[in-house]
Amino acid sequence: MTTTFLSELAAGLEPYVPGEQPKDKKYIKLNTNENPYPPSEAVIRAIEEEAANLRLYPDPDATAVRTAAAEYYNDALQLTGTDRLTEENIFVGNGSDEVLAFLFPTFFKGKKIAFADVTYSFYPVYASLFEVPYELLPLKEDLSVDVEQYCGGLPGDIGAVLLCNPNAPTGRALQLAEIERILAANPEKLIVVDEAYVDFGAQTAAGAVNRYENLLITQTLSKSRQLAGIRAGIAVASKSLIAGINAVKNSFNSYTADRLAIAAAAAAFRDRQYFDMTREKIISTRQRTEEQLRELGFDVIPSSSNFLFAAPREIEAAELFSRLREAGILVRYFAKPRIDDRLRITVGTDEEMDALIREIRNILGR
Amino acid sequence: MTTTFLSELAAGLEPYVPGEQPKDKKYIKLNTNENPYPPSEAVIRAIEEEAANLRLYPDPDATAVRTAAAEYYNDALQLTGTDRLTEENIFVGNGSDEVLAFLFPTFFKGKKIAFADVTYSFYPVYASLFEVPYELLPLKEDLSVDVEQYCGGLPGDIGAVLLCNPNAPTGRALQLAEIERILAANPEKLIVVDEAYVDFGAQTAAGAVNRYENLLITQTLSKSRQLAGIRAGIAVASKSLIAGINAVKNSFNSYTADRLAIAAAAAAFRDRQYFDMTREKIISTRQRTEEQLRELGFDVIPSSSNFLFAAPREIEAAELFSRLREAGILVRYFAKPRIDDRLRITVGTDEEMDALIREIRNILGR
Repeated sequence: MTTTFLSELAAGLEPYVPGEQPKDKKYIKLNTNENPYPPSEAVIRAIEEEAANLRLYPDPDATAVRTAAAEYYNDALQLTGTDRLTEENIFVGNGSDEVLAFLFPTFFKGKKIAFADVTYSFYPVYASLFEVPYELLPLKEDLSVDVEQYCGGLPGDIGAVLLCNPNAPTGRALQLAEIERILAANPEKLIVVDEAYVDFGAQTAAGAVNRYENLLITQTLSKSRQLAGIRAGIAVASKSLIAGINAVKNSFNSYTADRLAIAAAAAAFRDRQYFDMTREKIISTRQRTEEQLRELGFDVIPSSSNFLFAAPREIEAAELFSRLREAGILVRYFAKPRIDDRLRITVGTDEEMDALIREIRNILGR
Repeated sequence: MTTTFLSELAAGLEPYVPGEQPKDKKYIKLNTNENPYPPSEAVIRAIEEEAANLRLYPDPDATAVRTAAAEYYNDALQLTGTDRLTEENIFVGNGSDEVLAFLFPTFFKGKKIAFADVTYSFYPVYASLFEVPYELLPLKEDLSVDVEQYCGGLPGDIGAVLLCNPNAPTGRALQLAEIERILAANPEKLIVVDEAYVDFGAQTAAGAVNRYENLLITQTLSKSRQLAGIRAGIAVASKSLIAGINAVKNSFNSYTADRLAIAAAAAAFRDRQYFDMTREKIISTRQRTEEQLRELGFDVIPSSSNFLFAAPREIEAAELFSRLREAGILVRYFAKPRIDDRLRITVGTDEEMDALIREIRNILGR
């Protein structure tokens, strides 16, 4: 790609590399943390009903999603009094990646931010795009977050911190009490907690947004709510922080969430029963697979997410990745410092994980 | 909205104001240039079929839309030889507003751009956001584009030109031959032709993208393809320009078009019959309404779009706007220099336009 019309900024960008979406043959896809179960029937019905209205622009405020999300948190966390959320605590974007993107011009531009050395690889990509400098906070030897480092130890020039909880690709979660310690220790820094995987066994901090003005949570409907194909994500925060994101969004793109995304996301937040049933199935499958991998000699980080981050002992991770791929099973391998001895394995159905374990046994000759 | 966490950039932004989407009562909505007809049955079916796959991420390349769009242009313009388009000539975004947004970091950043003093109000909004300086090119007295001004008369420091054809909110179109003259006169400047409304009576320049390296077209599916609720738009250009946008997009947001948008947009491009039928109906309704407005003393700019830009003579435009609103009919009024004597009226169904004309007669006492 060479064109004289390209800007200098564009010529210098490094692309983010998403997990592959191959089309050559049918794979067992355990590489992009998609949910193995389809969206609920209520979601499908909501989409079918909304399709008739597509000639009209969507509600720029995505009110249906904001109301449904606030109700979900109030109900799930049994929030009372001033802790209760309203639609004014919720912002809706075209995927939580877009929500994250809005945070850069709204809050980070002109400041310095910090995040872990091993975390979601999108953070440095956006930081480069928006020309926001960042500092890397090293995880401990066991790839856990060093909470002490975040409590009083952060340099004064850091304006905001991105904290993925549970962390990706480790799957390891902080306790809510630890998150609250970090919030209390940094009242002048914005603490963004990326809860993409929180529903698979960690504790959300959504009940705390009205107590901490410096707390902003991002959540996606791609994982625990089966809507990776639809691109819907939210931010949960105090009314003033949400108003800030809205001001930026409305200054340049009023209609980011489309009608079908709004209908589907609202229905997904309302269908508590299906949500609980499917996440419990995934947690149970994960626990079973975790044990089986340990029996096969893997070092497995305790996971609170819908994936396992596991290091084989009898074979190189890169080699196992390739052998599994040849056998029609896709997992994720990161050729990066500190984590190139591990594979990130999405938790699929029991049948998919059985096939994975069978194939690993086969490759290891066990 | 006040929060100490807001960036300076965010604090200084001026919001874009979209046409209102009121919820207080049922209006005849002739204010946001939506299509009065629903999407085709083929589009609805495509959405229903795709809904089952929503647990999986979308195709980041949106190949189905790119193929369908290339086929549409090849077929509609009967392109031959090197003029023919392939999927490599097409980029897909979350609405043509997003496509436009991608052009700023890809091509405009670090340069100066130019566009008409009366045109789509999004251009200056994005320019401010991306900190790209711009020059305004005044329309002629009759609100037509001064082609001579674009042919040799543009200052050398202008790196790119945004040309909305037909222009909004005037509805007036340039001929393809005029566009080609501008392209030939400015080989070193990128000429972006925004063809949001082109299907309602103007000529697309899509057949020329392989002949002019400096031509890039944007198109939306919100207007002539009835999908305002879905957010899908495309760019059509040479392979190298498209590769440039893709490089930027892939550096920070791989999945902007969701599965349902891809399915719907591809189906809409394929359903030529419904597309032609509905746009012909709109053109015919527009012609009828244009005559009726002239009979009522309006000055109406000849329109090649799905709206009319008309100045009443017996009443102030702002007053007529308010009276129509009270009567349950929404049109668009811009309190801006040069155009504050006009209303932009979206072409709806014959029945909706009859109701509009009846109400105007009523207000004027005729």
